[in-house]
Formats: sequence, structure tokens, C-alpha cells
Amino acid sequence: MIYPKSIATLIEQFQKFPSVGPKSAQRMAFHILKMPISEVEKFAKSVVEAKKNTFACDVCFNLSSTNPCEICQSSSRDKNVICVVAETKDLIAIEKTNEYKGVYHVLQGLISPIDGIGADDIRIRELLHRLAENDVTEVILALSPSVEGEATSLYLSKLIKPFGIKISRIAFGLPVGADLEYADEITLAKALEGRHEI
Amino acid sequence: MIYPKSIATLIEQFQKFPSVGPKSAQRMAFHILKMPISEVEKFAKSVVEAKKNTFACDVCFNLSSTNPCEICQSSSRDKNVICVVAETKDLIAIEKTNEYKGVYHVLQGLISPIDGIGADDIRIRELLHRLAENDVTEVILALSPSVEGEATSLYLSKLIKPFGIKISRIAFGLPVGADLEYADEITLAKALEGRHEI
Repeated sequence: MIYPKSIATLIEQFQKFPSVGPKSAQRMAFHILKMPISEVEKFAKSVVEAKKNTFACDVCFNLSSTNPCEICQSSSRDKNVICVVAETKDLIAIEKTNEYKGVYHVLQGLISPIDGIGADDIRIRELLHRLAENDVTEVILALSPSVEGEATSLYLSKLIKPFGIKISRIAFGLPVGADLEYADEITLAKALEGRHEI
Repeated sequence: MIYPKSIATLIEQFQKFPSVGPKSAQRMAFHILKMPISEVEKFAKSVVEAKKNTFACDVCFNLSSTNPCEICQSSSRDKNVICVVAETKDLIAIEKTNEYKGVYHVLQGLISPIDGIGADDIRIRELLHRLAENDVTEVILALSPSVEGEATSLYLSKLIKPFGIKISRIAFGLPVGADLEYADEITLAKALEGRHEI
């Protein structure tokens, strides 16, 4: 005897989530079984509703419940500066700093030949279209310092250059509070490379 | 701008799961948003179905889609030996060994005064009832070597003694493949205590 079929199906479903292994999936399924049925139904409903009520913004491809999204609609945001991010969660991370007042462009991925994701599979064409149609003064590339992030940044900077728009990239270096002694070589190399006069 | 409401609700719901923090909850919510709507609906349905189709067995309190559960119904299981476990997942772990041919009793918890769980809150009364009504020859206590597991084992063994039934407890010691050098003191003490002649 292993699990009853409905529990096995649920565990299988939970295992499809990112960074959820067999043990966590089992724990989550048993959590469901321990919840009152009203709570379970509420959870199931919120899963479907979140999916149904969320769209990609037609302008910046941010996930939102409105279209265009709240940021694109806001009159207090500087439409002349576009920050390019890979995913909505990166946008959220930047929003949490409360430092950025421009708008965004969510690529919905990064160029990754190994995963079969080319330049046409992410929202690059739409970004170039925005740059051509609007009066943009600066594009900030806020992509992770991974192989895919580097490749996408390089590719984008080449495409944007002809527009004569200022292009910048967020700084990579030691995180605040980190100990230099324990920093890895690549981070330290980036920190040295990105040094600035004081 | 932080998340649209429906996404925020979903993240909040995921955070209620055991060992899911804010970051994992966010990752899981975004996973939902990336899934096709048909898959999302399938997932939501399997959550509710697992809950609806699962009952605690009237005999052993194992979670099952049948009542009595498959193990209690099986004619190939030895009804004279009862293995007492805290949760259904412990039962599953033992079933996976393919070594045990008796039946189970799932306590649905352990005595834990600090969490306000007393002897009456778990299925101890039902276990004693089973022992009184049936011809049981051995009770195996398979509870974790935690404070709660120890307390519950001690309490149960005192209650079962008067029945004149053999009581045993699973062995605690070095896990197979472990290095003696790296074992913690308590495990090593348990291993010494549980030594047997060869």
C-alpha cells in the first residue's frame, strides 16, 4: 500500500513546483488534508482566481490585474526611463527599494540557447518598438549577472545603441554587509572592475 | 505598487504551508501564473478532491480513500501485531521498507503539553479499545526519539502493560552509512544503550 490515488495525484502536482522535492510535496499534501474543507476550497479558489485575474500589461509585460498595469498608468512615474528586467519578480524587488521612479519593461525571460530560448522568444521586439515610438532618454538593464543575463544585456545594448539612447547596467559587486574575505572570486572581480573614484 | 490583490492573496495562502517562507511562496505563486489555465484548474481540483476523498480509517485512523483502510481490510496482514505511529506519513515510511506485515494505529499526533496536546487529544483511547476487543500479541511503538515521542511512548507503555501484551520500541542508533565520528552524542548514547550481543 502506498498513497490513496487522490493523495498521490496531489503530491505529484506539488512536486511540479519549483524547488519542491518529494518530501516537501508530501508535507504540503498532508497539510491540505489537515486543513478544514472550507480553507481548502478557499485555497483552490484563490489559485484559479489569481491565474484568471492576472494579465501581462500590453505596454511593459508586467503581470497585473489591470491593463495597462498600475505603473504604466501612473502619472507620477517618469516614462522617459525604462528599466529592463527578466521577470515580474525582479520588478517587485526593485519596487521594494522605493528608489526607482521610472517605468519598466519585463522581458519574460532571458536569452538561453541551452534551453532553446532565443531573442524572438522574449519581449525584445516590443522593447525596441517602445524605444522607437516614445521619447526615452535612458534604458537601465537590470538583468542578473548570470551567463544568460550577460548574453541578453550584451545583445540588448547592441540593438539599443543605434537609437542614441543612454544605456546603463546596474552595478555588481560586494553586497552590503558582506565580508570581503568570504566573497567569491567572480563577485570580487566584478567589484574591482566596477570601482569608482571617491 | 506591490502585488495585484489576487497574487498577494495567493502568496499569503502558500505561506501557510509548512516550511514555505515568503520567497518560496512568491516563487510558487509565479509558477501558478506561468501554468496554462487548464493545468491550474486541474491543480485546484486535485487539491479539493484529495481533501474530499480522504477519510481517517475508523479502525486505525490511517488516512485512506476507503473505510476501513486498505491495510485494515487486507487479509494478508497480521492483525495480532499493531505498530503505533504518530502520523500517516510515518506509516508510509514503514510501508516503504516492505518489512512489516502487521497492522497500524495512527495516533494523529504526540502528547505535547507545550502545544496544549494532552493524552485525550490523540487516539490513545481508541488504541486501548482495540487492545481490549481484539487478540493482540504485540504492540510496536514507532514514535520519533523526540521529547514528545519519548513522553508518549512512556505513557503508552504504562497503559498497555496491564493488558499483558508484549510491547516493543523501534531501535535508535547510528543510521546505516553514517560515520561514527560525526554522530551526535545523544544518538551515540542511544546506540550504546541499545547494543546487543553478537
